[in-house]
Amino acid sequence: MSTNANGQRRQMHLNLFIQGIGHHEAAWRHPNTDPMNMLDIGYYQRLAKRAEEAKFDSIFIADGLAINSNINFGPFNNFFEPFTLLAAIAAVTESIGLIGTASTTYGEPYDVARKFASLDHVSKGRAGWNIVTTGNEMSAHNFGKEAHLEHSQRYVRANEFLEVTRKLWDSWDDDALVVDRRKGMFTDPSKIREIHHKGNIFDVRGPSDIPRSPQGYPVLVQAGSSEDGREFAAKYAEAIYTAQNRLDDAREFYTDVKRRMLKYGRTPDQLNILPGMAPIVGLTESEAKEKEQELNEYIVPEYGLHQLSKSLNVDLFTYPLDGPLPEVPSVESINGGKSRYQVYVDLARRENLTIRQLIHRIAFGRGHGTYAGTPEQIADYFEEWFREGGCDGFNMLFPHLPHDMERFIELVIPELRRRGLFRTEYAGRTLRENMGLTRPVNQFATTPIKIG
Amino acid sequence: MSTNANGQRRQMHLNLFIQGIGHHEAAWRHPNTDPMNMLDIGYYQRLAKRAEEAKFDSIFIADGLAINSNINFGPFNNFFEPFTLLAAIAAVTESIGLIGTASTTYGEPYDVARKFASLDHVSKGRAGWNIVTTGNEMSAHNFGKEAHLEHSQRYVRANEFLEVTRKLWDSWDDDALVVDRRKGMFTDPSKIREIHHKGNIFDVRGPSDIPRSPQGYPVLVQAGSSEDGREFAAKYAEAIYTAQNRLDDAREFYTDVKRRMLKYGRTPDQLNILPGMAPIVGLTESEAKEKEQELNEYIVPEYGLHQLSKSLNVDLFTYPLDGPLPEVPSVESINGGKSRYQVYVDLARRENLTIRQLIHRIAFGRGHGTYAGTPEQIADYFEEWFREGGCDGFNMLFPHLPHDMERFIELVIPELRRRGLFRTEYAGRTLRENMGLTRPVNQFATTPIKIG
Repeated sequence: MSTNANGQRRQMHLNLFIQGIGHHEAAWRHPNTDPMNMLDIGYYQRLAKRAEEAKFDSIFIADGLAINSNINFGPFNNFFEPFTLLAAIAAVTESIGLIGTASTTYGEPYDVARKFASLDHVSKGRAGWNIVTTGNEMSAHNFGKEAHLEHSQRYVRANEFLEVTRKLWDSWDDDALVVDRRKGMFTDPSKIREIHHKGNIFDVRGPSDIPRSPQGYPVLVQAGSSEDGREFAAKYAEAIYTAQNRLDDAREFYTDVKRRMLKYGRTPDQLNILPGMAPIVGLTESEAKEKEQELNEYIVPEYGLHQLSKSLNVDLFTYPLDGPLPEVPSVESINGGKSRYQVYVDLARRENLTIRQLIHRIAFGRGHGTYAGTPEQIADYFEEWFREGGCDGFNMLFPHLPHDMERFIELVIPELRRRGLFRTEYAGRTLRENMGLTRPVNQFATTPIKIG
Repeated sequence: MSTNANGQRRQMHLNLFIQGIGHHEAAWRHPNTDPMNMLDIGYYQRLAKRAEEAKFDSIFIADGLAINSNINFGPFNNFFEPFTLLAAIAAVTESIGLIGTASTTYGEPYDVARKFASLDHVSKGRAGWNIVTTGNEMSAHNFGKEAHLEHSQRYVRANEFLEVTRKLWDSWDDDALVVDRRKGMFTDPSKIREIHHKGNIFDVRGPSDIPRSPQGYPVLVQAGSSEDGREFAAKYAEAIYTAQNRLDDAREFYTDVKRRMLKYGRTPDQLNILPGMAPIVGLTESEAKEKEQELNEYIVPEYGLHQLSKSLNVDLFTYPLDGPLPEVPSVESINGGKSRYQVYVDLARRENLTIRQLIHRIAFGRGHGTYAGTPEQIADYFEEWFREGGCDGFNMLFPHLPHDMERFIELVIPELRRRGLFRTEYAGRTLRENMGLTRPVNQFATTPIKIG
């Protein structure tokens, strides 16, 4: 049994990716779900509380900065904005991590840094930031831009953005707030400093107006798997949400990114790689397969065609649904999600899928892993990926919420626990503690203090 | 007894302005307060719950986008960012309004519009936006700007900013979300529209990615009282936080702004003017005066000198503390808070105050009204202002929190209720309903639906 540096048994990390009423694209049409939950904060709070009872590490909220052009045929993102949603969840939970998406392309570092610092204070150390450069070109038009910034330029901006936010989070020493009533000294001026960042893109004086937060920084999460994305992740990310369907691919990715960390002076245990997984749990294998089949019967083909056309940058409406995927533009032409493009094309080519088959395959989780089976089979799958160097845990994309999460918690988690693969109690109070991540040392502090 | 258009007795509106552990600048040094509450979300939640029990209309959170340069001598703003703070409070309250500050100078309309829409959904119709153009010049340096935008230019931007956000909030009809499972129709495409805003400053395509919220828009609140500020308020504001010390001034302001509303086709009852009030409640008048005196003994003169020097754009450290206020630059030279400048100068000149006296006078609420007296005297003061055309209620700036709020709730609110001046129950579920404000009609909808 593998152990970590402290001699503790290595266990997997589970993240609940909350996307409306489930990740299956037709979840909203199924009697299992209630689509109006998407406008009910109580629904999101109950999901998070249930995931906390089951000892998930965290919940995760994706975000776009534009309406999904496909909304007539189904929802895509949540109807809540991440910071307001996560803060409202923080108020009714105690231990579960709260990971929200914010864009480095359309945000300002000062604004993003203080919102995460505040969320980390609100949650007493449970904030995480899913750093995105924004894949949706429509966003540009909502922010006064003629066109979306080119892919590699977005990563140049993201790198400097991170540099600025980390300086801002370190602009207060942990012990800068002295509150000496007698002397009339509220803060120690030597422990709060302007950062005077002047880079190619950003010019930010600082300091932050918020004291250093319980975790120092939010846990930094990233999802892109392109060349730029891998390098960025190796430098900054403490968790990666990735999309792999096969263990071989997952292993290649895992090994590659963890190796890249070394050149940034980072140790591989400071990054948790969490492939996406959309499980369909059945008491028997055939029940699971039937359920998988049933879910797909609700698919509106227009929705899938539209999403896929966007992702592959080709108009699939002009091709027969039951014919093969046509030639598609090269990955260089893609200025949105390059990783998603690659997953879709590989899947179709490898398995010779028709357009309809591809739509059905990605309906569960947009190219993330899916697996229909019994609790034991799913636990086997998880165990193999985890022990064979494919991952440090999973990003759970349940097809229907809360239904499929309930099934997983009742049937699969006990099996994972029997095998010693998943916790029965939280290890600590902060998300960093539960994910086995160190609290960042303050880059400026002359007398660094370790809290928590 | 005055009644409104529906024949209901007109009652005053009370807003709790939450600023750390109280508005008195030396509150943090007094044994009444616990300064570490500033980092405890539970403290803010308890304040809001208590204000809700007492049936306040709303709580209000100010915000800056830079650290207060005076922080070594005391806190200024809260340590939480408004959206995360208010959403965490929304989760533990049911009826009280949640008003947060966001800047039109350093924000983007798409981002601000969706955050308030989301907060309105999270709170089920209790969001309010205190629209600021940002008075603090330091903010510019945190957002890559060489200099702070000039005062009137900030208002030009604010006007267009409001135009864009209102279009975004109206980009969905109230009944656009149809969720027809059988047909596979999630939204009605004819009821969601791009806004194609192209102005001098902003270029925003839209639509919003969030369905129209319970209140349509957040309640729009404004605080500037300059010429630009009054005009802006007359056009947009549904509540104004203003600073007056004398009923005559308050009446002039009240009459002027309500009159200006007419040219924008608005009726005066659609705006609540709420002067700031920092009450010191004593069981006897002398107890109240003693308490007022005691609070000021904790003042750190450097703090007051620093704040006042910034507000008046003059270095007061070079003048004797017990001498008169020197000549100060004209209001035209002020590019921060022009209203605050005017209040301070008027106060000093009118009452021939020394610098120290002026610091003490503004220590309670930075130029807002203060009044030390018995519960009856305070109720008399409130009643006179309310009945004599000075206001529609008050923005409460308690010197110490929660101490002075508790005293007010226990001693003054019962007296206001005995006089029929303040509610015993909330009138409705949304902030608009409780403030007597109509829900905005959708400017685009062809079949406007009224909800709530």
